[in-house]
Formats: sequence, structure tokens, C-alpha cells
Amino acid sequence: MLARLNQHYLTTKHPEKPTSCRTISSGNLRTPRVIKTIALAIGGVAAYGAYCIFRRPDSRAIVEADPSKKTLVVLGTGWGSVSLLKHLDTSRYNVLVISPRDHFLFTPLLPSCAIGMLEGRSLTEPIRRILSKEHGSVKFCKASVSKIDYANRVVHINSNDKVSFDLLVVGIGAENATFGIPGVKEHACFLKELEDAREIRQRVINCIEQASQEQNDTELERKLHMVVVGGGPTGIETAAEMRDFFRNDVQRLFPKLSDKVKVTLVEALPSVLQMFPKGLIEYTESKFLAEQIDILKNTKVKRATETHIEAEVTQPDGSIKTEMVPYGVLVWAAGNAVRPVVRDLMDQLPEQASSRRGLLVDEYLRVKGTQGVWALGDCTATRYSATGQVAHQEGAYLAQFLNNADANAGEDMARSQLPPPFEYTHQGSLAYVGDGCAIADLSVFGKNMPFAGALTHILWRIAYIKMCISSRNQYFIAGDWLGPAIFGRSMSTN
Amino acid sequence: MLARLNQHYLTTKHPEKPTSCRTISSGNLRTPRVIKTIALAIGGVAAYGAYCIFRRPDSRAIVEADPSKKTLVVLGTGWGSVSLLKHLDTSRYNVLVISPRDHFLFTPLLPSCAIGMLEGRSLTEPIRRILSKEHGSVKFCKASVSKIDYANRVVHINSNDKVSFDLLVVGIGAENATFGIPGVKEHACFLKELEDAREIRQRVINCIEQASQEQNDTELERKLHMVVVGGGPTGIETAAEMRDFFRNDVQRLFPKLSDKVKVTLVEALPSVLQMFPKGLIEYTESKFLAEQIDILKNTKVKRATETHIEAEVTQPDGSIKTEMVPYGVLVWAAGNAVRPVVRDLMDQLPEQASSRRGLLVDEYLRVKGTQGVWALGDCTATRYSATGQVAHQEGAYLAQFLNNADANAGEDMARSQLPPPFEYTHQGSLAYVGDGCAIADLSVFGKNMPFAGALTHILWRIAYIKMCISSRNQYFIAGDWLGPAIFGRSMSTN
Repeated sequence: MLARLNQHYLTTKHPEKPTSCRTISSGNLRTPRVIKTIALAIGGVAAYGAYCIFRRPDSRAIVEADPSKKTLVVLGTGWGSVSLLKHLDTSRYNVLVISPRDHFLFTPLLPSCAIGMLEGRSLTEPIRRILSKEHGSVKFCKASVSKIDYANRVVHINSNDKVSFDLLVVGIGAENATFGIPGVKEHACFLKELEDAREIRQRVINCIEQASQEQNDTELERKLHMVVVGGGPTGIETAAEMRDFFRNDVQRLFPKLSDKVKVTLVEALPSVLQMFPKGLIEYTESKFLAEQIDILKNTKVKRATETHIEAEVTQPDGSIKTEMVPYGVLVWAAGNAVRPVVRDLMDQLPEQASSRRGLLVDEYLRVKGTQGVWALGDCTATRYSATGQVAHQEGAYLAQFLNNADANAGEDMARSQLPPPFEYTHQGSLAYVGDGCAIADLSVFGKNMPFAGALTHILWRIAYIKMCISSRNQYFIAGDWLGPAIFGRSMSTN
Repeated sequence: MLARLNQHYLTTKHPEKPTSCRTISSGNLRTPRVIKTIALAIGGVAAYGAYCIFRRPDSRAIVEADPSKKTLVVLGTGWGSVSLLKHLDTSRYNVLVISPRDHFLFTPLLPSCAIGMLEGRSLTEPIRRILSKEHGSVKFCKASVSKIDYANRVVHINSNDKVSFDLLVVGIGAENATFGIPGVKEHACFLKELEDAREIRQRVINCIEQASQEQNDTELERKLHMVVVGGGPTGIETAAEMRDFFRNDVQRLFPKLSDKVKVTLVEALPSVLQMFPKGLIEYTESKFLAEQIDILKNTKVKRATETHIEAEVTQPDGSIKTEMVPYGVLVWAAGNAVRPVVRDLMDQLPEQASSRRGLLVDEYLRVKGTQGVWALGDCTATRYSATGQVAHQEGAYLAQFLNNADANAGEDMARSQLPPPFEYTHQGSLAYVGDGCAIADLSVFGKNMPFAGALTHILWRIAYIKMCISSRNQYFIAGDWLGPAIFGRSMSTN
């Protein structure tokens, strides 16, 4: 009855639209109702199946801290810390997790999120939800760490609170490296947190909206020029996703603008995607050429203004040319820098004096010059690259370390029974290069094998769905991928 | 192969977790793989069916403005304007839509969105997507209207641009009424746009996080006290959704806090939900009593500070008592006020001098004192309530008016062939009252019939899915409702 009423409400009996128009605008009428009903019924069955399979965990009683156990403070909620927490037998310690970010972020899909393929919620897993599955006393404190005082074994949080620790794991990542280049902090978008992705999306859409009303051709071209600095996977994927968005969605909604939109990738080194084998780099470059994404190699940004970047291009003959490149949106994905709180900890430890890239750790991930302090992920200076994969394995390794350690042996507990040193097992690198194609450099039976193309993109998606840390993320990401495939990406700044 | 590899990557061969812990944390292993595969296969079939049924519209060539046609400027992208555009034969006019908001917002579900049941994207439909299905010259300009200059038939947008119109439809809604009460604008959250919903969600979660670390009992209670001002459907639904969130999700993650969380609804009048019949009001009040949501009736807010509201309570004996009510989050849903640009237009027209609530329109929705200017929705002062349902019907009516009008008869075109006056057909009112129950006052065969309870909540959901203006919204809202049902609401501020 209600359904009928609302159907009535929607079509609004009195003000009839001329029949010719109505047939066009109400697409729902094209398909026989019975097919729709069957589709909905199948969907309902599938949904109920999913509900039975993935139903949420039962609630858990809060366990108070046990004074006989050591206090393990974990800083950060990124790949390293969350992997540690998921693998740790938390009942052995009083665990306190401190982070200003109350969720884990699935960083590899951040470029997709920036360009409207995915919603922020799909990439995040509330840390409270992760911790609610752990046993023992596990607490979370939403706060920024202002100082790690190693001598007093205290972490200062917010403005004036302190937390003591027996054992400490530092997994607070890195900040964006701007290399002191003037104007970058003020004018560029970064791509580390969810807010960054939202910011990029809004700026891109605002540029297109403004360009659609722009009379001046130079201004028009500037507004439609998207510049991505950094030729790593993040930069490559951001450029590729932007190009897809322009080709598919902007093309449809702004046909007049679409051939004026330009994407440029700027890289200071002579090559992009340095961690990939040569064949895949060449594949990516040819793909970008076909998609009309310019790659400026050997190009260093010297300054950024609100509308331009000043770039120094090293010519093949070694001479240097300075260019002013106008841009509408500038995305900065040029690597990591040490966070001030990590820098401060390093200054407290003479053993860290030689390091500039981050905390030095030994082969057991112990911070050099400390006892009972470990570090993992992007805040460390190791021979591994700064990826979620490395941090994830480090977290799992450290969990095993702490699960087997004799928690009562005091500060020196680790020395008596050292496990094998941490060894990173590279599973492979993936990158989406646009137009439905991806590249993959996978480790198969110990050998690295390159893959590229549309099939690799399907593998790329399966791999990321598999890598999600919760069924909840899998559910939402799959739903998000299907949505834009049917309805197109969202062309609004919400 | 890749799937196997990633499985391997996820479980991380080397650092094994003690078996007992792993069984608990990796819930995926509990269910036989074959059931999961079957569920995924069914989901895939359903998804493909959905794809075939709802596939996106083909791209459309941009049509340039035809100088022989009149220019129809539509201000706003809310219920009224979008309904007009969907029902209008746009090929009869050069249509220009102007709004600072580049999407239509499905306002009835905004309270659900504020408390984490729905994502913003699910409630919005990009205006570009709506317009791409229309015929003729239809353009959109993302801009704020700074002045409507009736005498010169010009709309001023942004800081210094102008747009001329032959015909104008004003559908720019209203702003939040604060009645000049000091402190409300500064400290309260409103609930009109998507950003408002995000703001409420962040403030609520931040309050809970802060309360979880609070030592002072008075502060703790204050932070966990959510005050909603306004006893209309928006206020009622916001209070109900908050209570659900606390009962289900906060209860699970913060068991110690959950019995200290309090929700209070403040209403200046002697009754809430004035547009509903008495039986349903009583049902709602008893429901709120059972859910421990306090309703303060006859209570006027006189002042708001960062932490308290000062309220004047009229006692049953007529005397007035002043109370200070501490709060953690203050949501203000107390009605509409006239936007300055509408006020300015009214000041230009002597016929509008008597109105204080909005533009006066005649029975054909023509703005009194003008020719070729119409108004609809919350910016008008009519005898109807300020709901999307009214604006939607007004938009459809006006579309019929403009579809049948003789576009070449000049300014007076409407006078020669007036259609029947606009008549609002009330289809019913719905409100969610918490704990899985809703109330509905429906018009069945011309008679109003009250419904209440859990079944009504299912009808409430079906009704809103039906009312969505696009399959895209339906797809995402259905997905969003299923997600939290399985995984709980998100407990993070992203």
C-alpha cells in the first residue's frame, strides 16, 4: 500500500509531464518490473547470506589493567601498529594504543579515493572495532604524542598529559617531505590521510566547475592542468585515476572541456617507479603516452605559487632550463620526512646521531640505544622501502617477538631468547596505470615475475580486497567499485 | 596464484601467532570456504543483473543556448528546483541552474547520516548527473546568488558576475532560525547540509573519546549529554538515532560509559511533532520514555555557551524557571529563517511588505508583485509546512505550468491560459522514533491513517528508497543500511 502510495507521490498525479519527456527521464519504466523484482530478490538472498557469514563480533567485557603485567604502549594506528595488534597475544600485557587518528587507513587505495572511486569510509576501519576483538586489557587513547621522554619512560600526550610505559612500540609513520621548497606546504595537496583525498577531490571538481565558466583561454588551460609531483606508485596511480576520471566522467558531463584537461607527472629522477623492473616502467610510460599524461623526468620543483610551479629541467646535454608550469591542482607525492617527535627522540639517543631518515633499529626492530623500545614502518630508517607491506610484516614479526618473550625477565627480557632476526619477504608490488590496466611485479616461487594489462588490473583488485584487514572494508570497497562502474564517478564536491 | 600469494601475505608465514589467538581474531576461517564462494557468486549474479538494469545513461551532446528561446534561470538544487527540472520539458527554454551546492541532497535521511548509518555520498545526487539526462540547452553554474535585481531582471552571482533572465524560479530554501538567541550560531550544530551531518558525527564521537579519558564526573556527564533543540521530525529522528547509536555501538565499545550517556530533546511548545495526530505523539513520547530520552516541553533556550544552555521552563502553574543545562553536543533543529537574498528581493517588491516568513506567492506559485518570477519550497510563505514533499509537488506543478505555457506570449504568457491552481496532496508524514520503530501518518483513500511500530520502520525504509531521485542513490542507501546492520556503525571520525 505504502509502496503504491509513494509511487503515486513520485510521479505526482496532478502535474502531468508530456508523455514524450517522461519516457526519457524516468528510466525505471524501461525494464519489466518482474526482472527488477527478481534481481532484488537475488540481491536479498545474497545479502542475507553475507549477513550470516560476516555477522559482527559479540560484545566483550572491558578488562581492567592488571598491575602484575607490563604496560605496552603502542603509538600509531597505521599498517605496522595494527598488524602488531592483530597478531599480538594482548592478554600478556596491559596494552595502550595512542594515536590522533581513531581509524586504520587502507593507504594503497587512497589515490582511488581522491578521484571519487571509493568513499572514505570504505578505506577505514575504526581502531575501536579492531581492538574490541582483542583479549586482556586493551585501551585506546585518541591523542597526539608531543614528546617521547625515553629517560623517564614517559610519553607526553596532548598538551599536558603523561603516560608511563614499560615497553614501547613507535609506529607513527612519517610526514610529507617538502624538502623546504617554498610554497609547497601552502599550495600543494598531499596524499597521506583521508582528509587529503577529500581535499584533492574538491579542488579537482572546483577547478572543472570554474573552468566551465572561464572566458580567458590561458586561465582555462591553467585550471584544467593537474600536476602530480612524484613518480612513485602513489603519484603514478593518482595521475592515472585523474586521467580516467577526465576521460570517462568529465568527457560525458563537460564535452567541451575534456580535450583541454591535461595531467602532468613531475619526477626529479631520470625514471619513474624505480622499484619496478625496466619492462614494467616502459609499459607504464607507453601507457601514459597513449593516455596523454606527460611525464617530466629529471625535473626538480624549486618553488610553488598559487598558480604556478617553477621547475628546473635537466636537459639531455646536462644543461639546466627553468620553466614556469601553470597548474590548477598540485598533488605532492614526493616521499617522506621524519616527524618532529621522532626527531626529538633521536636527539635523546647518541646512537641515533648518524641517522637522518628516521629511527635506526637493529635486526630485531629494537630502537638502537634503548631497551624495551621498538619501532616499525615509515618512522624507521631501514633498507626496505616505505610501504604498508613492510610495516605489516614488521608488525607481525614484532608480535611474535612479544608473544614469545618472557615478560617477567625485566628490561633485558629480549636478550636471553632472541628469535631469528626480522627478514622481509617481498610479495610483490602493484600499481594501477590507468585505462583499466595495472602492473604487478610479483614474487612467484622466489622469482620476480612481471605482469601488466587489463587482467592484472583484475588481479590488482582481488589482491587489495584480500589485503583488507576486515570483512567490513571488503564489503564497502566491493560495493564502491561496483557503484561507479554502473553510475559513473560522483561529480560533486560532497 | 595471486590470491594464494596474498593469503600468504596476510597471515605472514614467519611470525606465527599462537593458535588460540588466531582462531579468535580471524573470523573468516570459521565458515566453510564453499559457502562464502557461493554467496559471492550469487552476489556477482545479482550485481550483473543490477548493472544491466540500471546502466548509466549515454553521453549527450552539449546544446548551445538558442536565442529564439526564453532564458529560464532556476536558483537552487533542492527538492523544489530538482523536481521542476526533472518534470520540465527543458527543450522549450534555455535553462540555467545556479546554486552554490553542486548536488541534490536527500534531506529526510540527514539525521541517519549524522549518526553514521549512511554515508554522505549515498544521500547526494550530483546536479550534473541530473541535468545530463535533460534535453535542450541546460547549464549549471556553481555560484552563490548575492542579489536578485528584479527591476533589471538580473541575478548577481559570486562577487561581481551578472546573469540576465526572462523567467526566474527561486528555490533557494531557507537558513537555520536561531531567533537571535546569543551563542547558538557559535556553539550549536545544525542539520541542513551534508557538512552539518559530518560535523555532528565528529563532535559526538570526539565527546565519547574525550569522556573515555575524563576523570572528573561532572565533566564526564556533561560530555555525554546530547541536547537536541526542536521537536519536529528532524529533532525527533536525530535524538532517536543518537540513542540507537549509544545503545548498540557505544554500549559494545565503551561499556563503562553507556549508562552515563543521556539524550535530551528540548521543545519550546507544549507538544512535539505537531503535524502528527495525537495517538502517534503519545506513542513517540512513550517510546522516548522507554529509551530514556528526556523530552523537555515548554522550554525555551535563552542563551548558549560552549558548555551549557540557559533554558526557561514554563511550569504547569504558569511560573517560569530558569535552568542551566550542561551539554556535550548541541544540535539545533528549530526551524527556518528567511535568507538575506530573499529578504532583499522582498524589500524590492511593495506587495511583499506584509510577509515575514518568506516570499508571498499566488495560487500559481508566482511571486506576488512580479511577472515571470516563481518561487517554491522553503523560501516561500505558504500555508503548507516546510517539507521536501511540498517543494517536490510544487516543482512538478510548476514544470507542468511552464510546459504548457505559450513561451512566446511575452511576460504575460501565464495570464492567457491559466491552469488549475496548485493544490498540495498530502501523502503522509513519516518519522523514525528509535529502537527500530517508526511512526507514519498516511493518507489512504483520502483518509489519514496512523501507523506505528517495527513494521512501520520497514515501510519507512521502503518509502525512502522509493522516494530517492535516482537508482544510484537507491543502490548506495541500500548498501549503507545493510553494512552497519552487519558490522555496526562506524566509531571513527572520518
